[in-house]
Amino acid sequence: MRNRLHLIASAAMLLALTGTAHAEGKPALVIHGGAGVIRTSMTAEIEADVRKALRKALEAGYARLEAGQPALDAVTAAIVVLENDPNFNAGKGAVFAHDGRNKLDASIMDGKTRKAGAIAGVETVRNPILLARAVMEKSSFVMLAGTGAEEFARESGIALVDPSYFRTERRWQQLQKALAAPENPQASTGSDAYKHFGTVGALALDKSGSLAAGTSTGGMTNKRYDRIGDSPVIGAGTYADSRCAVSATGWGEFYIRTVAAHSICMRAEMLKQPLAEAAEFVINKDIPSLGGDGGAIVLGADGTIAAPFNTDGMFRGWIGMDGEIHVAIYADEDDSAD
Amino acid sequence: MRNRLHLIASAAMLLALTGTAHAEGKPALVIHGGAGVIRTSMTAEIEADVRKALRKALEAGYARLEAGQPALDAVTAAIVVLENDPNFNAGKGAVFAHDGRNKLDASIMDGKTRKAGAIAGVETVRNPILLARAVMEKSSFVMLAGTGAEEFARESGIALVDPSYFRTERRWQQLQKALAAPENPQASTGSDAYKHFGTVGALALDKSGSLAAGTSTGGMTNKRYDRIGDSPVIGAGTYADSRCAVSATGWGEFYIRTVAAHSICMRAEMLKQPLAEAAEFVINKDIPSLGGDGGAIVLGADGTIAAPFNTDGMFRGWIGMDGEIHVAIYADEDDSAD
Repeated sequence: MRNRLHLIASAAMLLALTGTAHAEGKPALVIHGGAGVIRTSMTAEIEADVRKALRKALEAGYARLEAGQPALDAVTAAIVVLENDPNFNAGKGAVFAHDGRNKLDASIMDGKTRKAGAIAGVETVRNPILLARAVMEKSSFVMLAGTGAEEFARESGIALVDPSYFRTERRWQQLQKALAAPENPQASTGSDAYKHFGTVGALALDKSGSLAAGTSTGGMTNKRYDRIGDSPVIGAGTYADSRCAVSATGWGEFYIRTVAAHSICMRAEMLKQPLAEAAEFVINKDIPSLGGDGGAIVLGADGTIAAPFNTDGMFRGWIGMDGEIHVAIYADEDDSAD
Repeated sequence: MRNRLHLIASAAMLLALTGTAHAEGKPALVIHGGAGVIRTSMTAEIEADVRKALRKALEAGYARLEAGQPALDAVTAAIVVLENDPNFNAGKGAVFAHDGRNKLDASIMDGKTRKAGAIAGVETVRNPILLARAVMEKSSFVMLAGTGAEEFARESGIALVDPSYFRTERRWQQLQKALAAPENPQASTGSDAYKHFGTVGALALDKSGSLAAGTSTGGMTNKRYDRIGDSPVIGAGTYADSRCAVSATGWGEFYIRTVAAHSICMRAEMLKQPLAEAAEFVINKDIPSLGGDGGAIVLGADGTIAAPFNTDGMFRGWIGMDGEIHVAIYADEDDSAD
């Protein structure tokens, strides 16, 4: 069905730093900068930039955790770093929609309270994750869209920018390529280093043992009709409860249909599967069985970390129970310290 | 936290026409016209109108099933009847948002393929459920919003109307009351017959044993900032797979946070709970534990029907294995034939 399916068998990889029990008060942080990396089109320069940015995001988030701040603060801090970096499809580096505009989505969820905030299709919010958090904390709603979400942003004192802030030359060229091949609704950009997803996300476990999850994206290059993907859909792209946190990155439609993030947590909880096994099933079996692909990061309240994906690579990083920064891009460097 | 919570203990009711095995090829249909009914403010006239409309919707959907058409057709047919009736908060009878406009949401899911379609915030689509279905069947996307969704509607030949079509006097007065009490974000309309939710939904089991689910709503009176509720969120307000279909109606934010529809199906599947028990837990225990309320309808591939809710009443109807039309409003008339 998809010419991307051939990747699954060869690249299905599972990172499972299986948590022993959550070392007392020991925090953890996991981030991703999107699946869909194509090895042959990466340059040494992009690789170096991405690794540097992932490290910076981990440092920003982990500092919050070490200072005793809640998991939500670490998630927000890490994602803001990635949103501000043009190498990722979120915030500054968001891809262009069909109409030549950048429409950003994000969501955040607090595992302890299961409170959540999400926004879809905003064009003037510098850091969508901060708006998602404001929706969670300052409104009676969970999900806001478009101009209404922007009105709420203004009233909440969230930093706004002119839409031109999101115009980067590389993303613009990706749209032009996609427009030149309109028969492909996925707008795969071929020789470019990025396919249709470069979403960013973060998961944190704080010293008190609480989890949080967040995801932010520019969506899909050449998306039309104010399409909403999985990133702002609680249960699909983002989910956290007291035991489990997930942020997904992939072909969003399949993540919505499989309620991917929630499915991973429910399998672990109800089937008593190890989190890594639950994530492996949803990402590398269930979603591909429908024709989709992508990856996810997963963090358990016991410190378990998993990051399955079925693409060439997934930008990712983590600081687990060893307290060390780990950064990886390709499948074959799993579990390696950077 | 909410003065509505006192209702939960007294009105928690469960309808469980426990399915024996799905009688061979026997179809089933379940519908709702929203929870949030307040008995003391209902009139005999509204009651009669609502029962008549529920019956008409059941007849429209069941005719499709008897003719051997797929579950999706029955769901669509039943919901269109309810959308066209001003007594329900969907389509014609949609409530008003804060800005005096009607913004409609809907979603549909095919249990057999887990394909889904959803739209949020449309103002000119006569039957939002038909647009949700078109998104599922004619686009590569699952969820569209606002003007983009309307552009897709135009291109897909979906019937459009002038926004004034949705202007009904009773809903307008509900908004005026809500605006006069702005401190209440839920915009409970007090003495009116309807609280904040009057969403409609339908579930069908066709002769081939496939399930489908759909939900349509005008959302919450006085909603702001282009708020999206649970109805168009796959996993929250609507979900269907090969074993289980759910359509929810309630205080949407809590249904998103608990991923309510998907949670019900996962509990039944993974914990091997009877569907009615799984639904009872999510609707009458988990959601109220967070401060939310509402109801849901549930249909299993074996013909099991459940319709738990924790409000005074929930407009609902079903045709189960007995082939008879059942219609009910209040908790104490569960299981009664009309």
